[in-house]
Amino acid sequence: MKREHKERMKARARNVCLTVAYDGTAYHGFQRQSPPIRAVQNVLEEKLALVFGDAIELAAAGRTDAGVHAMGQVVNFFTDGRIPTERIVRAMNSVLPPDIVVKAAREEGRDFSARHSAKSKSYIYRIQEGDTPNPFSERYAWYVGTPLDLAAMNEAAALLLGTHDFSAFRAAGGAPMLPVRTMYSAEGRRIEGERIEFRFHANGFLYHMARNIVGTLVDVGKGRRTRADFAAILASRERKRASATAPACGLFLESVEY
Amino acid sequence: MKREHKERMKARARNVCLTVAYDGTAYHGFQRQSPPIRAVQNVLEEKLALVFGDAIELAAAGRTDAGVHAMGQVVNFFTDGRIPTERIVRAMNSVLPPDIVVKAAREEGRDFSARHSAKSKSYIYRIQEGDTPNPFSERYAWYVGTPLDLAAMNEAAALLLGTHDFSAFRAAGGAPMLPVRTMYSAEGRRIEGERIEFRFHANGFLYHMARNIVGTLVDVGKGRRTRADFAAILASRERKRASATAPACGLFLESVEY
Repeated sequence: MKREHKERMKARARNVCLTVAYDGTAYHGFQRQSPPIRAVQNVLEEKLALVFGDAIELAAAGRTDAGVHAMGQVVNFFTDGRIPTERIVRAMNSVLPPDIVVKAAREEGRDFSARHSAKSKSYIYRIQEGDTPNPFSERYAWYVGTPLDLAAMNEAAALLLGTHDFSAFRAAGGAPMLPVRTMYSAEGRRIEGERIEFRFHANGFLYHMARNIVGTLVDVGKGRRTRADFAAILASRERKRASATAPACGLFLESVEY
Repeated sequence: MKREHKERMKARARNVCLTVAYDGTAYHGFQRQSPPIRAVQNVLEEKLALVFGDAIELAAAGRTDAGVHAMGQVVNFFTDGRIPTERIVRAMNSVLPPDIVVKAAREEGRDFSARHSAKSKSYIYRIQEGDTPNPFSERYAWYVGTPLDLAAMNEAAALLLGTHDFSAFRAAGGAPMLPVRTMYSAEGRRIEGERIEFRFHANGFLYHMARNIVGTLVDVGKGRRTRADFAAILASRERKRASATAPACGLFLESVEY
């Protein structure tokens, strides 16, 4: 049945791909939920149905968690709808709420899948420093009241580069998928407004991986853990040795590469 | 009666001055309102009463409108409360909601008034450019979908420098206060994220003045008005000749100088 349904969807005329940005604060994550719970996917599918005149089921590159944001989430869906591709962005943004924005639309070949064709992804994580919180970054950064040693954090982050079993940073009880990923870059820098921005670029991320890495890096930045501790945690492949998961609000799916 | 009440307040032992930042999105402006309407002042006075054990009435440097933000609002109040000055910031931030933050506290002389002692104020106004809106600046910038000619806007803004009758940019029906103010600086620059940030520094601002100036400058940036038009509007002292008021969300009270 499920397979038949999929075949029917793929028999539709067009495979449309959108780049989407959203503020995840008000949503219970990306993945479709049963009403009255609101997820980003529910809202997108509802508005796509209006614009395309078709029941839409979309697939996304990354299933961001509740409170996590996206600057460049990528989704695709099959449709018989006839709206010209160059009109999709404006049509969608005129019906979407202001915390979800379609940034770009293009048509793809039949075999393109936003989820399965992705070669790599980048996530950004923002940390707010300062003696007092910043009311304007409350939704978009993790406020850490102690000064952080960014150089020490970057020395630890460099240990993530290359191909590793990232089980130590995977959510406990996560799906039993292969835990080996390749990290291409992992580095933090200070940006304006007393903030630190970490960027992670990898061929894939395990569930909660970016947030568990950041939680542990912040303990390095506070001097509670050393670079050697961080290396031992990664090598142990034991989730319980790493630090607590960093809050969702600081995380952004920045981009997906195909 | 009112005067007696004021005398009684001033007989209290301390004159405490706070610098406060807030995200104005959820509030009906700064100035105290009758419940259930929430203003920033209601929340501050309620939490100050908890921390100082005293009924508090505060005065503020600027009465920001609904939706307007502050990075550096300044308030003062008289109290017999005994909490040491160096503990006020932490005590207040532990009871305030995350969209209001006390940045600093100090004790002032009896004659200091956050409102009447202010020598000058700076406001920032942020404009979001780009082909599509930015979901992360929706609460903090005015989205203008057309590209703006920033050089033309700055040439017009330079006409504001010096001492002028700013009636053309005062809210229609505003209080009959003297409309002459001195503008020390008025300039925009592009900042990251396809945004333009205007900063206005003056010895005072009429009601809606910053937002009416920005509304008119944006029309200059769109090519709908020239520098000469802008000069004629300022000289006319007629509100109806200027453009529509820019939205509240882009405006921040940046700082107050004493």
